[in-house]
Amino acid sequence: MQLLAGSSRSAARRPSAVEAPAVSRISGRPACTAARRASHVQPARVAHASTPATERANGNGSSPTQGSPLGSIDGFVPQAGLTANLLLQCPDQKGVIAAVSQLLYGFGCNIVSSDQFTDSISNQFFQRITFDFSEIVIGPGNTAVLERAIGELASRFRMKWKLAYKNKIKRLAILVSKQDHCLYDLLIRHRSGELRCEIPFIISNHPDLKHIADTFGVPFHHMPIDKSSKDSQEKAIEDLLAKEQIDVLILARYMQIFTTGFCERHWEHTINIHHSFLPAFEGARPYHRAHERGVKIIGATAHFATAELDAGPIIDQAVSRITHRDSVDDMIRKGKDLERLVLARAVRWHLDDRVMVYNNKTVVFED
Amino acid sequence: MQLLAGSSRSAARRPSAVEAPAVSRISGRPACTAARRASHVQPARVAHASTPATERANGNGSSPTQGSPLGSIDGFVPQAGLTANLLLQCPDQKGVIAAVSQLLYGFGCNIVSSDQFTDSISNQFFQRITFDFSEIVIGPGNTAVLERAIGELASRFRMKWKLAYKNKIKRLAILVSKQDHCLYDLLIRHRSGELRCEIPFIISNHPDLKHIADTFGVPFHHMPIDKSSKDSQEKAIEDLLAKEQIDVLILARYMQIFTTGFCERHWEHTINIHHSFLPAFEGARPYHRAHERGVKIIGATAHFATAELDAGPIIDQAVSRITHRDSVDDMIRKGKDLERLVLARAVRWHLDDRVMVYNNKTVVFED
Amino acid sequence: MQLLAGSSRSAARRPSAVEAPAVSRISGRPACTAARRASHVQPARVAHASTPATERANGNGSSPTQGSPLGSIDGFVPQAGLTANLLLQCPDQKGVIAAVSQLLYGFGCNIVSSDQFTDSISNQFFQRITFDFSEIVIGPGNTAVLERAIGELASRFRMKWKLAYKNKIKRLAILVSKQDHCLYDLLIRHRSGELRCEIPFIISNHPDLKHIADTFGVPFHHMPIDKSSKDSQEKAIEDLLAKEQIDVLILARYMQIFTTGFCERHWEHTINIHHSFLPAFEGARPYHRAHERGVKIIGATAHFATAELDAGPIIDQAVSRITHRDSVDDMIRKGKDLERLVLARAVRWHLDDRVMVYNNKTVVFED
Amino acid sequence: MQLLAGSSRSAARRPSAVEAPAVSRISGRPACTAARRASHVQPARVAHASTPATERANGNGSSPTQGSPLGSIDGFVPQAGLTANLLLQCPDQKGVIAAVSQLLYGFGCNIVSSDQFTDSISNQFFQRITFDFSEIVIGPGNTAVLERAIGELASRFRMKWKLAYKNKIKRLAILVSKQDHCLYDLLIRHRSGELRCEIPFIISNHPDLKHIADTFGVPFHHMPIDKSSKDSQEKAIEDLLAKEQIDVLILARYMQIFTTGFCERHWEHTINIHHSFLPAFEGARPYHRAHERGVKIIGATAHFATAELDAGPIIDQAVSRITHRDSVDDMIRKGKDLERLVLARAVRWHLDDRVMVYNNKTVVFED
Repeated sequence: MQLLAGSSRSAARRPSAVEAPAVSRISGRPACTAARRASHVQPARVAHASTPATERANGNGSSPTQGSPLGSIDGFVPQAGLTANLLLQCPDQKGVIAAVSQLLYGFGCNIVSSDQFTDSISNQFFQRITFDFSEIVIGPGNTAVLERAIGELASRFRMKWKLAYKNKIKRLAILVSKQDHCLYDLLIRHRSGELRCEIPFIISNHPDLKHIADTFGVPFHHMPIDKSSKDSQEKAIEDLLAKEQIDVLILARYMQIFTTGFCERHWEHTINIHHSFLPAFEGARPYHRAHERGVKIIGATAHFATAELDAGPIIDQAVSRITHRDSVDDMIRKGKDLERLVLARAVRWHLDDRVMVYNNKTVVFED
Repeated sequence: MQLLAGSSRSAARRPSAVEAPAVSRISGRPACTAARRASHVQPARVAHASTPATERANGNGSSPTQGSPLGSIDGFVPQAGLTANLLLQCPDQKGVIAAVSQLLYGFGCNIVSSDQFTDSISNQFFQRITFDFSEIVIGPGNTAVLERAIGELASRFRMKWKLAYKNKIKRLAILVSKQDHCLYDLLIRHRSGELRCEIPFIISNHPDLKHIADTFGVPFHHMPIDKSSKDSQEKAIEDLLAKEQIDVLILARYMQIFTTGFCERHWEHTINIHHSFLPAFEGARPYHRAHERGVKIIGATAHFATAELDAGPIIDQAVSRITHRDSVDDMIRKGKDLERLVLARAVRWHLDDRVMVYNNKTVVFED
Repeated sequence: MQLLAGSSRSAARRPSAVEAPAVSRISGRPACTAARRASHVQPARVAHASTPATERANGNGSSPTQGSPLGSIDGFVPQAGLTANLLLQCPDQKGVIAAVSQLLYGFGCNIVSSDQFTDSISNQFFQRITFDFSEIVIGPGNTAVLERAIGELASRFRMKWKLAYKNKIKRLAILVSKQDHCLYDLLIRHRSGELRCEIPFIISNHPDLKHIADTFGVPFHHMPIDKSSKDSQEKAIEDLLAKEQIDVLILARYMQIFTTGFCERHWEHTINIHHSFLPAFEGARPYHRAHERGVKIIGATAHFATAELDAGPIIDQAVSRITHRDSVDDMIRKGKDLERLVLARAVRWHLDDRVMVYNNKTVVFED
Repeated sequence: MQLLAGSSRSAARRPSAVEAPAVSRISGRPACTAARRASHVQPARVAHASTPATERANGNGSSPTQGSPLGSIDGFVPQAGLTANLLLQCPDQKGVIAAVSQLLYGFGCNIVSSDQFTDSISNQFFQRITFDFSEIVIGPGNTAVLERAIGELASRFRMKWKLAYKNKIKRLAILVSKQDHCLYDLLIRHRSGELRCEIPFIISNHPDLKHIADTFGVPFHHMPIDKSSKDSQEKAIEDLLAKEQIDVLILARYMQIFTTGFCERHWEHTINIHHSFLPAFEGARPYHRAHERGVKIIGATAHFATAELDAGPIIDQAVSRITHRDSVDDMIRKGKDLERLVLARAVRWHLDDRVMVYNNKTVVFED
């Protein structure tokens, strides 16, 4: 399940469409084998398939506070406080809320906010809890104990869960082609503090937007692509994602279609912006087709980039009224504002652990 | 072209997507002979450049006031003033606006409002002119002379045109099945004066909504339908449309699909409300499919009911945000508000001669 | 606090902006003694931490099903299931969520949905919990025991709370003047099942809309008003509210202003629709003033009708774009759609116990 | 009237709310003598019915192409074609449309689009005509002759008018303080070709945003201000506007209030963005006050910056739904998107000669 890992064994035994591989990051390694790090706190740490967990754990030896002055921890933002987001999903049943809230209370954590949803069709229960653990009874450097307790409780309720510590900043990569509006928008919002993440690099199959990356001081990787180089380019991208321990991948009008394999490995942390109100006008040239059909509204859709084109779980959509006066160019111009807005919102929610996926749909706990 | 008709002969000779059959009403009779009520006012005067104006004038011999004191004309609303809407379409060319406005000025008419649009792809020019002819130099009882002049000008510019006198109230029929929200809405808006029309009757394939028709004092025809009776029911509907000289047909959640023949004869004055933002979710159960797809917006679309299901020219659309919390029932409930709003708007614009059709799209001169 | 009442005595001693008088209904009788229908179900059970639970329990001795076969209870809707809404407010503190959910779990109740909010400025915590008590361990006829337990917990957390059983249908009265659109809308939505309430009567200071009340089979009370009769008319209204045990009062374009006394007694269950996006254009003729100011959007606002005109807590708002073409009449016409929509939404949320008030603002747990 | 000017003398004699001083630019120099760049193109030709056309023509002797090969004209965009926007206002009367369209047709001009509006309260007629004069019979270098003819016609109809040649790019200056979102947005849209103008410089009372100006290669003038320097700073700004022949001044979250004198001289070409849906929350800290009032929508308003604070003619507005969960910071964040969108739209329309002002309101001929 998206972002919610079960135990490594169960995940390994019965992978399914609604079940995410038990990885804590894009690394592809099962969450539970990465569990040597569980003695600390492994928030939304990324790992890499080929890197032994021990090695990495040594490499960063991290917990929100452990063994390291706060200021020196990579990505740590002290003012964010010691809060964490707990996402969980399980079959609907009595006592889940009581058990979880009692557990957190027992540890001395304070629930800052909580949102939940029960899907009556699939009978699944979803919850997002933000809690403050600054006064946790076992000390904020020992959240591994808390995690173990959550794990036991999860086992009892057949629960998938994920814990993301707010002081562990996610790492986000942007892929673009030639259009600049979404890239500008993300970078400006990031600079203004609206998007809580690090942006280690931008990738493009064209060199056109390098000047923007330069302006904002973000490394720019030009990775051209043609028919013969598609596989190798994808491999290079994946190597870079792994090396830089990327948590989230944004396709900001990246006009290339990834292979099925890539999508299957990455869809759950890859957000695409499509320039139509899906499922209308899937595929190429949606504005042209919208113009031809004579619709009176245009739209944009942010969704997870699964293998089936433009058919992934929808995170957010927005629309705008148009009239017969709007040419395709007008629609493109007006659509840009929608694309910017919708993509930014989806990215923001995803970074803030507000998006859960099941049955190819999303539960979005909006702020 | 929608609402802009050629003569009955020429229309019969060369029907086309953009050319309406030369009928002034749904009655099926050609404009030139649909003269039962021609002793009063000609509602939606149709003409074609290639038809000698005299022949047409002879055919109906109409003018808004001819041979009848104004007060006694069926459907006449004195406070509406002596105004008319002129719709025209022609290849874009220099001098059209000048010629038309000069002609009206020459007759002593005052242009109250004017809206125009040039489609740069098809190179077609569209215009809607509302003018006051109360001080027309030939006398308001002689607008046939004005029509002849417009006909001659139209011939010069290869123009299709339609002239609708505001004091000739259109006659509208509503078709429903079991759902009442759109029916209620139309009747309430009609009663409040929002929809400028007469509503001679309501047709339904179910008896359920008769009580609403009774409440509003509108005759209700129960015309049940099953597989064997589809053709005869349609025939009965058409007879009623003709007998009552219906101008506009509203499918207010009428859950039946008409035959291709019926659609081809009536689409240009038949407005349907579909409960999705077309072209997404054409056909049956759109809310269920929207729920299944996990969209974050739902919508409604008013369109002309052409033979191809849910593919007719779109008049208006509206949407509403939903979340994962919205069940299908919630979507149905929220969608009702959209359906009401969009259908009412489309009907209002159509009654006010604001909608033109070309290339399966609409030009809507909104108020 | 809106809907969260202290005991009648304490409310009488220290009325405040955030504290509702301890009445269970508009009747004006204290909750504890408003027991005429207490043999059935207590609709909006109110309690206060400082009130001995036993006293209260004695006062009404109620449970949703006590002493009466389910089917015979006035307003009982069996298909609704045995669910209840618990609203609570208290100073933000650790352990509240855990305590409440543990309590409900301990009683064998299942939390169906839960929504919460912490206002960081006032440091107040708000929660709405919907729970199913059909398998409550003490038997669904003994919810008084549950209430007593909640009361004790509330005392510990300085909590105000309210418990509303879903099978106890609220009773709603509508006040109108001459405009019919909101009245029609509420009655149609009610008939369609969208509004979960009984509507025992409609009051108007004009006789104009009686025919609508008749159509929908709702008693209509014509209570005219002039300068000399204002007080007596208000008294007559209050008598009727009390006699019919009205829970909610809707001012559906009722163009009269109540006295300060009436507002202070009833504001918390009285919803007004104002035809502007408040705080713009408070008071009379908002569309005229909006037209004069040249705004590009118009709006409507549903709010609780406090003594200060158009300044009560806002429940919902909606807006619509307009242009320079829109006359005041156009704005009135378009505004009607907003008024209908916003009022219906506010009424629906209020009936569903989704609206809480503090500091003259609302917390709305939207569905 | 906004943008429709009389001669400098007549304007001086009878200034009025609806009459702009006869300046072609912000420079403060009368149109007739603002001829420094008249060897090229006259941007926003202004004229008044009572001014002898010859005198005016002598004054600037301009035509779009006069005395200069097209390609070399500063700001000329050949692909834009030889089109012009004619704005006119006059008392409503018969024959205006006919006369103007006949005149243009007579000169061999082709009306590309036309939009009009009659305000029935003030009985004023407004029209915007875009026409192509590439085949003008007198030659595109002799549009002064056309202007003289328009002037004579204007005299007959007591018409105020303005003619703006599309190949004469307007010059726009941006004023900012410390907030960067609107500045970024305008610069990015300008770079993408969405805003048809030159941006010769940016002024700020703080140095903070210089790096953005540098990025986009726009000169940045830091003009600090304190109580003692307000007048001199304003004077310096005006000097710069005049020197650089600025046509449009954008206050992109410039947090200073200009003197009444400055506003009176410049309001008609000065657009401000205010962060509320005016007239709600005029003045300082609108988001804080919106939060305090508990509104459910927030908005932004672009308006001309007249002397009365936040009370100038509104060009555009947009709103966004919020809930009780939105803190002031959330509102600020969400409001930024509204401010960007609304300001950009207003600027675009103004640059495209789509905005006319009368009675402190705007007529906006939207595209």
